Amino acid sequence: MNPGVDVEDRPASPVGGLPSWADGPARQAVLAFVARTIGDGGSSPVPVEQRVAVFDNDGTLWCEKPMPIQLDFILRRLVEMADADPDLRSKQPWKAAYERDYPWLSAMIDAHYAGDDRDVQTFAGGVLAAYDGIDVDAFEVLAETFLRSTHHPTLGRSYLHCAYRPMVELLDLLAAHGFANYIVSGGGRDFMRPITQEVYGIPRERVIGSTTALAYTSDGHGGTITHTPTLDYLDDGPQKPVRIWSRVGRRPLLAAGNSDGDGAMLDFTQHADTPYLRLLVRHDDAEREFAYTKGAERTLDRAGRENWTVVSMKNDWTSVFG
Amino acid sequence: MNPGVDVEDRPASPVGGLPSWADGPARQAVLAFVARTIGDGGSSPVPVEQRVAVFDNDGTLWCEKPMPIQLDFILRRLVEMADADPDLRSKQPWKAAYERDYPWLSAMIDAHYAGDDRDVQTFAGGVLAAYDGIDVDAFEVLAETFLRSTHHPTLGRSYLHCAYRPMVELLDLLAAHGFANYIVSGGGRDFMRPITQEVYGIPRERVIGSTTALAYTSDGHGGTITHTPTLDYLDDGPQKPVRIWSRVGRRPLLAAGNSDGDGAMLDFTQHADTPYLRLLVRHDDAEREFAYTKGAERTLDRAGRENWTVVSMKNDWTSVFG
Repeated sequence: MNPGVDVEDRPASPVGGLPSWADGPARQAVLAFVARTIGDGGSSPVPVEQRVAVFDNDGTLWCEKPMPIQLDFILRRLVEMADADPDLRSKQPWKAAYERDYPWLSAMIDAHYAGDDRDVQTFAGGVLAAYDGIDVDAFEVLAETFLRSTHHPTLGRSYLHCAYRPMVELLDLLAAHGFANYIVSGGGRDFMRPITQEVYGIPRERVIGSTTALAYTSDGHGGTITHTPTLDYLDDGPQKPVRIWSRVGRRPLLAAGNSDGDGAMLDFTQHADTPYLRLLVRHDDAEREFAYTKGAERTLDRAGRENWTVVSMKNDWTSVFG
Repeated sequence: MNPGVDVEDRPASPVGGLPSWADGPARQAVLAFVARTIGDGGSSPVPVEQRVAVFDNDGTLWCEKPMPIQLDFILRRLVEMADADPDLRSKQPWKAAYERDYPWLSAMIDAHYAGDDRDVQTFAGGVLAAYDGIDVDAFEVLAETFLRSTHHPTLGRSYLHCAYRPMVELLDLLAAHGFANYIVSGGGRDFMRPITQEVYGIPRERVIGSTTALAYTSDGHGGTITHTPTLDYLDDGPQKPVRIWSRVGRRPLLAAGNSDGDGAMLDFTQHADTPYLRLLVRHDDAEREFAYTKGAERTLDRAGRENWTVVSMKNDWTSVFG
């Protein structure tokens, strides 16, 4: 535990430099896209209000292995609940959390990729119960405290330092050229919001993500908004373009993802008459991060056929973390 | 029909002037609130990112009588459908639309205020069917064309000129002092979006409103987002604070409304430690606009008890329209 950790020491990246990107096809594709967008080379610049870029979070902007950061947060809460209520210890998913039964969790994810979501449903029931009734301000304190005080299990750095430096440089480059950057994550919107400005320069109103249904209760001094044990929506797959439209009302010019759940969002980022760029981060660097393709097979296959730009962590990034 | 109408000639308002507001308690409350927010008088300024203001649309920013502007749009569509399909002419709500049976519509609204929503449900079925399957780009063209080409039935001006000039001055004043203004309307989000920048200076990503559930379909060249015949949510009553939180992630400093459906949003705009202002527009000017309290009785009652600022159109505004 290291409650003092924050990222105020995040190094500023020189605009246009992308210094942590190797001079290869991915970096060239990014710079050429930005140049076309702003009208370098004689083309018409894209109006600033149309410059929208969308980014998946887990595995695209920050590390998602050995488990998504929010999953660690949720498992700790399930353990707390099982500590307080022994009856929960024989019931999934509390049993797996309480016993640190990671094989059960891995098998759940494998079954999910194989099309069997029965254990995912069981797990979701636990997730929805975990914060039932909490108000959004109290939830924010819990999420922020966790993110500021917890270390990644193997990388030797705090979770707040698990953002990919080259992607932060890309966010800065786009912002410097008039882009509005949005996070569009399958993870929890209100889990990420406390730290996105600091880590990514993305303000909380530009964080799109999954959420439970919320309820407002009036109380004579401003009222409270609380979590209910019902999913509002899971921001993944075809829901990503729907949620981008709902929030932004525009088709993005740039989308970046890393898994099959990002396919629809990348697909949506295609224009007949303006520049666009679709980036797919490929996790092929076991030495500096992790190497895996599970859950990204279809999307990696599409990238090759549909002219998406694949970003190899190993070959395209000279450094991975800030 | 006057397809050329637009509001490019909207007069710019001098910042801080609120020239269409009479020098009374409402104007003074607004100016005092803005002064406190920016730290005039020695108090600490509120950080710019916290300066969020939310506005109901129908009856708060523009005219909603004799019927909400979007209701006119929908009724014309129901008539089109009944023109094309004679079977619909004996079925509500197409029957009422086709026969211009305004008493049926008025009775529906009266029953709604009395707590009986059976006819509202019937009507909602027609509304959801009216644009079932249309894609969001085609819907936008229909909404924008309607709003640019249709005149208000009695005020002798196009719908685009039915915004209240004093409220546009207020939006401009707030924007000039660092506020992010949002529309939070019970009306359709995607109905308003094509014109909010031009009429209110509010960009499309800051329009919150009701919507049908949307669906994304991939098609190899960017895909389409289409309306389904299911309500996603009705942005009214306690849903307004929920939707503000979902979109913005902050509690607003200023909220303006005019009816009971805005009560929760005004209630939500209450802080322990920063300035806040709750405005309730009172329609008491039968000569220049309309005079009515139906659907606002509870909120007007609360305003008196809870120190909300009531804005009398008759007494507080020297002119109503631009």
